[in-house]
Amino acid sequence: MWFIRINMSDRTYRVEPAPETYKNFGGRGMTSSVVADEVPPLSHPLGPNNKLVFSPGIVTGTAAPTSARVSVGGKSPLTGGIKEANAGTSWARDLAVMQVKALVVEGQPKDQSKSWGVKVTWDAAAGKPKVEFFDATQFEDQDLYQVFPQVYKQFGDQISIAGYGNAGQRNYANSGVVFNDESKRPSRYAGRGGLGAVMGSKRLKFILIDDKGAPGVPVADKALFEQGRKKMTDALMKHDITKPKGALNSYGTAVLINIMNEAGGLPTRNFTAGRFEGAAKIAGEAIFEGNKQRLGKELYNHACSPGCIIQCSNTWHAADGKEIASCVEYESDWALGANCGIDNLDDIAEMVRLCNAYGLDTIEAGATIAVAMQAGVIPFGDSKGAINLLHEMGKGTPMGRILGSGTATAGKVLGVTHVPTVKGQAMPAYEPRAVKGIGITYATTTMGADHTAGYTIAPEILGVSGKQDPLSPEGKAALSRAFQATTAFVDSSGHCLFIAFAILDIASGFEGMVEEANGVLGTHWSNDDVVALGASILKKERAFNEAAGIGKAADRVPEFMKTEPLPPHNQVFDVPDSALDSVFGEL
Amino acid sequence: MWFIRINMSDRTYRVEPAPETYKNFGGRGMTSSVVADEVPPLSHPLGPNNKLVFSPGIVTGTAAPTSARVSVGGKSPLTGGIKEANAGTSWARDLAVMQVKALVVEGQPKDQSKSWGVKVTWDAAAGKPKVEFFDATQFEDQDLYQVFPQVYKQFGDQISIAGYGNAGQRNYANSGVVFNDESKRPSRYAGRGGLGAVMGSKRLKFILIDDKGAPGVPVADKALFEQGRKKMTDALMKHDITKPKGALNSYGTAVLINIMNEAGGLPTRNFTAGRFEGAAKIAGEAIFEGNKQRLGKELYNHACSPGCIIQCSNTWHAADGKEIASCVEYESDWALGANCGIDNLDDIAEMVRLCNAYGLDTIEAGATIAVAMQAGVIPFGDSKGAINLLHEMGKGTPMGRILGSGTATAGKVLGVTHVPTVKGQAMPAYEPRAVKGIGITYATTTMGADHTAGYTIAPEILGVSGKQDPLSPEGKAALSRAFQATTAFVDSSGHCLFIAFAILDIASGFEGMVEEANGVLGTHWSNDDVVALGASILKKERAFNEAAGIGKAADRVPEFMKTEPLPPHNQVFDVPDSALDSVFGEL
Repeated sequence: MWFIRINMSDRTYRVEPAPETYKNFGGRGMTSSVVADEVPPLSHPLGPNNKLVFSPGIVTGTAAPTSARVSVGGKSPLTGGIKEANAGTSWARDLAVMQVKALVVEGQPKDQSKSWGVKVTWDAAAGKPKVEFFDATQFEDQDLYQVFPQVYKQFGDQISIAGYGNAGQRNYANSGVVFNDESKRPSRYAGRGGLGAVMGSKRLKFILIDDKGAPGVPVADKALFEQGRKKMTDALMKHDITKPKGALNSYGTAVLINIMNEAGGLPTRNFTAGRFEGAAKIAGEAIFEGNKQRLGKELYNHACSPGCIIQCSNTWHAADGKEIASCVEYESDWALGANCGIDNLDDIAEMVRLCNAYGLDTIEAGATIAVAMQAGVIPFGDSKGAINLLHEMGKGTPMGRILGSGTATAGKVLGVTHVPTVKGQAMPAYEPRAVKGIGITYATTTMGADHTAGYTIAPEILGVSGKQDPLSPEGKAALSRAFQATTAFVDSSGHCLFIAFAILDIASGFEGMVEEANGVLGTHWSNDDVVALGASILKKERAFNEAAGIGKAADRVPEFMKTEPLPPHNQVFDVPDSALDSVFGEL
Repeated sequence: MWFIRINMSDRTYRVEPAPETYKNFGGRGMTSSVVADEVPPLSHPLGPNNKLVFSPGIVTGTAAPTSARVSVGGKSPLTGGIKEANAGTSWARDLAVMQVKALVVEGQPKDQSKSWGVKVTWDAAAGKPKVEFFDATQFEDQDLYQVFPQVYKQFGDQISIAGYGNAGQRNYANSGVVFNDESKRPSRYAGRGGLGAVMGSKRLKFILIDDKGAPGVPVADKALFEQGRKKMTDALMKHDITKPKGALNSYGTAVLINIMNEAGGLPTRNFTAGRFEGAAKIAGEAIFEGNKQRLGKELYNHACSPGCIIQCSNTWHAADGKEIASCVEYESDWALGANCGIDNLDDIAEMVRLCNAYGLDTIEAGATIAVAMQAGVIPFGDSKGAINLLHEMGKGTPMGRILGSGTATAGKVLGVTHVPTVKGQAMPAYEPRAVKGIGITYATTTMGADHTAGYTIAPEILGVSGKQDPLSPEGKAALSRAFQATTAFVDSSGHCLFIAFAILDIASGFEGMVEEANGVLGTHWSNDDVVALGASILKKERAFNEAAGIGKAADRVPEFMKTEPLPPHNQVFDVPDSALDSVFGEL
């Protein structure tokens, strides 16, 4: 198993055996360990001492279902803390089957006027991967929907692509790392935290992988792995949320629009209300029905990456049947829709397309546009104005740069006090005042406000793994802590987080996840062991953040959420600071 | 002695006896105590829970020389921490002689479309101050050089004015609180840390004072006070730096340009060098000689405020003899000059005038423009372009808003890594890599990078109170700590910090300062006591910052200063973190 280190200061690389101490790491566990061990916590996120780490999950590249995820880690230009963001893509599988545990990008060219790409291939003679550099300057300053076909044309259809867009090129704190989906779209993003700008600051425009001849992922105990794989598959195929033609496969993640609106927890018009009168018009059901009407047939969703059996990725089609964008996720739909007071699916999908085209995180982009609306730059509900602001971000005008710098910074620049961020990262599509547990996750996770770090929505709203009152703060710190620790392991396994619904409700599913990992690694982890492993990852991340100056005082929701009641429940965020402090205090 | 509390939520006020526990506080000691006691550390600086506190010094309003200073305090929108900035102005004296220990502005109007002013007068019948509100909306969106004459016309020539300009109105983190000088110019600023925006967020455009009939400052021990006053006066009149026609009276603070340039510590072109080839053209000597040539006579400097015997405030005159601006301080001259690669005094003075006109801190403005130059917005040395950028700030264009948000935020938005700030505040005109002690002050003071918080330049460069090697880090943490503690008392006394040269070199001067304070208050403080008092103020400030999330990790200079050697000495900032931590660790 290998570590690839690419040094952009002098465009050299090394392929080294993966360090023994890291041998059981993967995904988030790997990226956070490398960042914590190698990046000075006070280094500038866009300077030469930050590193960008890619790591496939433990079971990525195997036959484990829904496991083609890659974690990307580094010090975040958005939060100033440690960051892991992950994406589902063939790129993850391709890196894994080349037996690469981590690909670490280091250094920075002094001359920032040229950009470079690397192509990673399997060197059969040497029995290890090799790296070639190429000039990629010509691919800058372009819409990624135009760039990807050029890259495929030049390097062949069999490659997978990682890269950044205009946002990363311009050092925006809102810039993701883009990966190809199964239809070669630039649509799968390790979106949050500005890691596109870290890649951009290193002027590494693309990492291409051609896995031809790669040996595949070694599996230590094939029988155990196979047993785990079967349990996981059964759970996913059985659960209402993840089964074929189930909630996610039919309506995509946007199935949550109506559910969260009903719960009064769909943040609307920059988090000034918990219900949006236009929710039904942008909900997952509306996407399904609208596509049916426009295409003349039912369209179920597709897989974003090889081997996914949940297949939740949707597309939205224009009146003439032409695809506008894929994927209109719940978060994107909400951020660019309800949170901006916009209820027009065609315009929302166009905004998703523009985020993909320019390399922006849709959540951060929508939250920032909503703050700009609050500042009076354009009115709430002005979808054409919002589309224009996205173009300004792509072009790098002064207003575009303000918005590209993320919600917290844009709020400062525009003089807005009502800014829904934690640790500089915009809150996603669940209102802390209406769902207290997720507010605790937002406040305390090492990542900045992030629903995926501890998705307590499962029990608080969806009735998965029990049912808890979303409005009550009672017991929610412990709930968030448990979810955060388990999630840190799921994010290390290589599985998509959406397996959580099935494995939390179906005990054999959880066993399956652990058996898959034990099968691949030859370990003997118990269910408790993997949660403890997750907790150990959180502790590493936390220590990094504290050394970077991000401590307890940063584990808070913004002041306005503690003083302004949110309709329709008219509640404030009433979780005491002591409960917030207990999340890591008692980890 | 009184506290005036003005509530901008409902435009009411209270005049209350000053709390017994605060009776010996003044200036910074008062503002920092009120902020630490009353402002929630995690409140939004521009929200209703921040407070803006004005407090004259302990001896302000008496016959003590050079003591008409007022401290302004609050939570800073620039640093996110506690802030005190002070200015010399008749406003300080007028508040003091009304026996007001503190004027506290609280709350915030929900309707931000209208602005208000208050006029504070002495109510002889009631034997205490009174406050009247007036609509001040008409004064917004104007150059302060146009506004001040309108205000004097409406309210009479005898008033003193405190207020904010376009920068504060637009919520800029770079916005000062403006006060009148002795010639009714809008030129005296509590400039640093964005307190103008705090005032702006409360929509309190002006605080006017008419001290007619005010009883004056009570002096507990007149003989002791008089003894102290005489010692202080003698020291100031004797010391080469502060005496009439001495360095400050002749050349103003800009006398430091040549000195710092010679020392290799004049930050040039956004802190990329320590020497500026155009230094002699913008130095205090050049101002003196230029004025002489253009006016046909020697022009010595004037007092910024009543009772100042140092009189260091200069003016710069155009070729036709007309005044361009007052005052071209060393810091302004450097920030808008050398640091931007600009060597044209007429253009620098015009930029100073624009900062005064729009309500911007000159240091932060110059540092931000230099970062914009680094980003390629305009080239280094482009003085006309820089003037245009100041107009953009005044007008509130998107680029103007970026720059008005201060150096650190502008650096983020413009994607620049070479950003010379600590705790979000731009470094002033002394290079930490060339003068290690001042770097320790920048790094550790509660204020964000601030030379006035612990001016170790005195021994490191000027040979005041001994002579220390500026390039050596040895012993400098202790030096900075001692200077910071003493300074916190000087900033409480009401004296201008420039008394420091005389009182550090002349022991009777220091005694004089202490005796003046004891004379006014009836206290029996020793020299050691006042330093301990200063230390206790620092500890309060530090505790506030820690609760606001600003701890040890924020006590660092930017990464580039530890990795990039600075010409001509080619040194990095080599003070170990342990030394930085010892400043407050051993306080």
